Amino acid sequence: MENKIFLDNASTTKVNENAILEFNNELQNFYNASASYSCALDNKHKIENAKRVITSNLGIKYNDNLIFTASATESNNLAIFGSIKKTNDQIVFSEGEHLCIYNCALELKARGYNVVFVPLNKEGTLDLNKFKEVLKKPIAFMSCIHVSNETGAENNILEISKMLKDCYPNAIFHSDGVQAFGNIKVNLSELKNVDLYTISAHKIGGMKGVAGLFVRNKAKLKPIIFGGGQEFNLRGGTENLPVICSFAVATKEKFASLEKDYDYIKMLNEKARDILGKEKKIVFNSPKNASPYILSVSFVGIKGETLVRMCDDDGLLLGTGSACSSKSIANNRILKSMGKSTEENEGAIRLSFSKNNTEEEIEKACEILLKNYNFLLETLK
Amino acid sequence: MENKIFLDNASTTKVNENAILEFNNELQNFYNASASYSCALDNKHKIENAKRVITSNLGIKYNDNLIFTASATESNNLAIFGSIKKTNDQIVFSEGEHLCIYNCALELKARGYNVVFVPLNKEGTLDLNKFKEVLKKPIAFMSCIHVSNETGAENNILEISKMLKDCYPNAIFHSDGVQAFGNIKVNLSELKNVDLYTISAHKIGGMKGVAGLFVRNKAKLKPIIFGGGQEFNLRGGTENLPVICSFAVATKEKFASLEKDYDYIKMLNEKARDILGKEKKIVFNSPKNASPYILSVSFVGIKGETLVRMCDDDGLLLGTGSACSSKSIANNRILKSMGKSTEENEGAIRLSFSKNNTEEEIEKACEILLKNYNFLLETLK
Repeated sequence: MENKIFLDNASTTKVNENAILEFNNELQNFYNASASYSCALDNKHKIENAKRVITSNLGIKYNDNLIFTASATESNNLAIFGSIKKTNDQIVFSEGEHLCIYNCALELKARGYNVVFVPLNKEGTLDLNKFKEVLKKPIAFMSCIHVSNETGAENNILEISKMLKDCYPNAIFHSDGVQAFGNIKVNLSELKNVDLYTISAHKIGGMKGVAGLFVRNKAKLKPIIFGGGQEFNLRGGTENLPVICSFAVATKEKFASLEKDYDYIKMLNEKARDILGKEKKIVFNSPKNASPYILSVSFVGIKGETLVRMCDDDGLLLGTGSACSSKSIANNRILKSMGKSTEENEGAIRLSFSKNNTEEEIEKACEILLKNYNFLLETLK
Repeated sequence: MENKIFLDNASTTKVNENAILEFNNELQNFYNASASYSCALDNKHKIENAKRVITSNLGIKYNDNLIFTASATESNNLAIFGSIKKTNDQIVFSEGEHLCIYNCALELKARGYNVVFVPLNKEGTLDLNKFKEVLKKPIAFMSCIHVSNETGAENNILEISKMLKDCYPNAIFHSDGVQAFGNIKVNLSELKNVDLYTISAHKIGGMKGVAGLFVRNKAKLKPIIFGGGQEFNLRGGTENLPVICSFAVATKEKFASLEKDYDYIKMLNEKARDILGKEKKIVFNSPKNASPYILSVSFVGIKGETLVRMCDDDGLLLGTGSACSSKSIANNRILKSMGKSTEENEGAIRLSFSKNNTEEEIEKACEILLKNYNFLLETLK
């Protein structure tokens, strides 16, 4: 475990030590935050404080716009199924959504909704011309990922949400911010047309089992898990105090070094681009202005899956794309939407970085990748 | 915290030390169990093993009948919304269901389903005569709690599920087993008409953030959280390895001492009944054959809420009923269905025990309760 090079940080990452300390501090403070005795009420206040820490880092003053859920997948499902009412108007998704949102879209389609996908451009962001076409007919709901979990490409959600609301002020705009949160600056006060925004703990050094959904107007949302009145009646289930408190600590630490980390990760990303870019058959799928945390690379002429397995044997851990999509590698939906060729699609792998990675690790990782790539190319000759 | 007497163990309880050790063992083994490298696959196997530990304690040989969720509330929602298709047939609930199931029932009603509630008898279990009436018309789905979270009354789910299936073999039967799991023996192989069964970790010494749903036939269930194919495509979200492994450890330990603990808790329960029973105005709402882990008591003539607050000041922690229902204390739905008078309802509190409670604590708790009760009765004269 210790000697491995881990470049799949976008799937999940090492837990922050101070977040673990906070978790352990609160673990035996087990009182049900919905009970009525005083130490239970103290726990309720701790949850409110944790919300304040998180929302303040997103430019939001009040903590009651945040709902805690158990995963970003749940947050995305809540945003979608909790917002959409019976309608014939279009339900719009970018073709670059995370698999869980894509599956929600397919479910809506199966239920008879008018589901429309907007393609991506070559850079991996929403094709605004195609979007303008879609805007000609009424839209009830739209979900557009902020930073792509496959390529790191950043959508201009300020502009996209404004385009939507200029045409349909009552439409709901949701963005999956999992790969943006803590990695790039996000100000939800400025993004005033963004109604719902998903964040996750375990991608930024928090623990699995807790995530959040920013909700601008709670009156417009319905729960998908009905319970005992928790989270403003919008998400049932006993409040999970220890992971919530550790989420706040992880957030605080991540945001405190956001800019410094960004520069460092950018340096790692550029190093990888420099080394791999010397091999002419390699294609970078991530645009230059993408979030540096994610680098999608196509090793043309071989299967990414095979390369990933060989690297695994050499102690380098990475994926062909998002871990959630690992079962459908052969046909990467998002790269396809970007117009990538079959060969580029088949040879794709995703590198994703964290501040725990060293420069030496990146050099070593590229060396392993190139060694195995060349071996495969030779073998296939 | 250390000097307080905690008698609200049915809401949540102290975390088992070995479950914490297991959690910490797996915490930095953070690899996404859905990724394709070998150490991620190892994590997948650990999750399968955890399932085997849990299902084997429920008399089920195969581990692929268990779905992990984030809470019993989610499990109950999945059982209900994941099973019910468009139908005009009756959707049946006992009046003794946990608040989260009651709220699901209200939601179904709002969506136009033919929702029917079957009342309880005086003992707090399903009124079988009333149920026979309901059985005269087609039923698509039924949910009946195993052990009441308010009174500990145990429904004969073997008999009830058989009555249902004898009339309607295709109906789905779900039971919320949260207060039964680990406290009384449950054999799901014998309960062959029970299609779905909910269990929770944090009520038996596991951690918050993980629960389970036993699913006899996965083909009959649809997800309510759509994701990346996890949990047989029935529940999306990154697998939460550390809490899952700690859930298995907590289960193992709880079941290893199930009978010994049962006898001990029965002794504590009888002690409380003996001491409180001397006060003639006190009424026990739990039947004698209820699970001893829960004792519902009505302090007639005063408000349970006031008594709970006074006890809190004296270091005794308990609730008027389930923590989830703490906002609607004044009118306990379940006691009302049992035919309790308004006075009995208003004066109700719930004691719930764990093996961490001592005999001395029970004596002290009864002393505090009686002191405050008599003070309130005097004041109100």
